[in-house]
Amino acid sequence: MPRPSVSDARLYLCTDGRRDRGDLADFLDAALAGGVDIVQLREKGLEAREELALLEVFRDACDRHGRLLAVNDRADIAYAARPDVLHLGQDDLPVRVARDLLGDDILIGRSTHSPAEASAAAAEPGVDYFCCGPVWPTPTKPGRHAPGPGLLEHAAALETDRPWFGIGGIDLANLDEVISYGVRRVVVVRAITEADDPKAAAAEFRRRLTEAARAD
Amino acid sequence: MPRPSVSDARLYLCTDGRRDRGDLADFLDAALAGGVDIVQLREKGLEAREELALLEVFRDACDRHGRLLAVNDRADIAYAARPDVLHLGQDDLPVRVARDLLGDDILIGRSTHSPAEASAAAAEPGVDYFCCGPVWPTPTKPGRHAPGPGLLEHAAALETDRPWFGIGGIDLANLDEVISYGVRRVVVVRAITEADDPKAAAAEFRRRLTEAARAD
Repeated sequence: MPRPSVSDARLYLCTDGRRDRGDLADFLDAALAGGVDIVQLREKGLEAREELALLEVFRDACDRHGRLLAVNDRADIAYAARPDVLHLGQDDLPVRVARDLLGDDILIGRSTHSPAEASAAAAEPGVDYFCCGPVWPTPTKPGRHAPGPGLLEHAAALETDRPWFGIGGIDLANLDEVISYGVRRVVVVRAITEADDPKAAAAEFRRRLTEAARAD
Repeated sequence: MPRPSVSDARLYLCTDGRRDRGDLADFLDAALAGGVDIVQLREKGLEAREELALLEVFRDACDRHGRLLAVNDRADIAYAARPDVLHLGQDDLPVRVARDLLGDDILIGRSTHSPAEASAAAAEPGVDYFCCGPVWPTPTKPGRHAPGPGLLEHAAALETDRPWFGIGGIDLANLDEVISYGVRRVVVVRAITEADDPKAAAAEFRRRLTEAARAD
C-alpha cells in the first residue's frame, strides 16, 4: 500500500469502540461515507487485546472507504495493528522513539496546546501533522485549559507546509467561527459520535471546510 | 550488558511509583538490599512520559544492586526504556509481537490464571518465565477469580525448565503454605510495599524461599 497523504484530509474523527451501542461498523460506515478522512480509536483503559480487536473493525471500515486509520498513544499497538497514523500527545512517547520503532511508513501526528507547542510541532523532525486545541473546553479532556482562538490564529500564521487541525469542542454551530480563525481542518468527537445522522453531520463538516479551503 | 538470567530469581516485587510517599529511590534501595531480584513498575493510568521518568529511578536502583528491571504491559515503553524484562498479561500484546518488536535481548514473562494458561506459557515460544495466580483474592486485581492452590500444584508438576512464580495475596504469614504447594519463587506487592521495614521483609522472603529450594 502506498504511503497515504494527510494533506488532503479535512475531517478527523475520534471515537471510542461504541461497545455500549454495539453499532461500531455501521457508525464508521456512515461517518466515512459522509466524508471523514481519518478515524482514530480513542478509548482510555482498553487492554491491548481489546484495542487490537476493535482496530480490526476500524481497519475494515477504513479499507472499504479508502480512508486513514489512526492509533492513539501506543506505538506498540501501532506496531501490531499497522495503522496509517500514530497520534501522540505531549505526554506520550517522544516522536523520535515512535519513529525509530515504526519506521517511515506511518504518519505521526502531535497534539499541541499552546503557541510554543504548535511552533515546535511545525518544526519537529518526524511529525506529519499536528492538532491545536482544545479551542473550547470539552468533556473529552476534563480539566484541560482551553487555549482558545489565539492558538488557532497562531497556527494559521505559521510558515509551515504541515497540515494542522483545530480540535476541542468544535461542532456545526461554531464551525464557521472556527474557520474564521484560519482553521481548514478539524478533529471532532461528539459532533459526529452523538449526531442523530453521523453521515449527514460528516458531510456538512466536509462541505464547509472544503469550501473555505477553496476560497483561500 | 550480558543478558540477565531469571533462573536465579526468587523474589519479584511489583510497586507503583510511590508518588504519594515521595520515597521511591529509598524504598527501592531497601527492597533490593533485602533481596528482591526483580522489580516491576506497575501503576495503571500513567502517561508514557511519567512512566519513563519513573523507570529512570527504577533503572538506577536496579543498576546499583545488580538486579533486574521489569516493565509491565507496554512494549513501546520497553523499547524506549530498555529494561531487562517485559511482563505481559493474558490481555496484553501477543508474546510474538513483543518479541518481534524488542528482539532477543530482553526477558519476556507471562501472567497465567488457570492450569491451561500455565501449561501454555510453559510451552509458548519466546516466554522466559511465567506467573501463576492469584493464589488468594487480592485488592490489586479486584474482581479476578482466585484459582487457588490447585494452580500452584499444577505448575509445580509441569515438566518445564522455565522459572515460574506464585502471585496474589502472598505474605510472610502464608508463605510457608505457599511453599508447601511447590512454589519456590513469588511475586509480592503489599507484603513489601506496605511493610514497616521493606528490607527486613524482603530478606525474610528470600531466606525462606532459598531454603526451600535448597531442600528440594
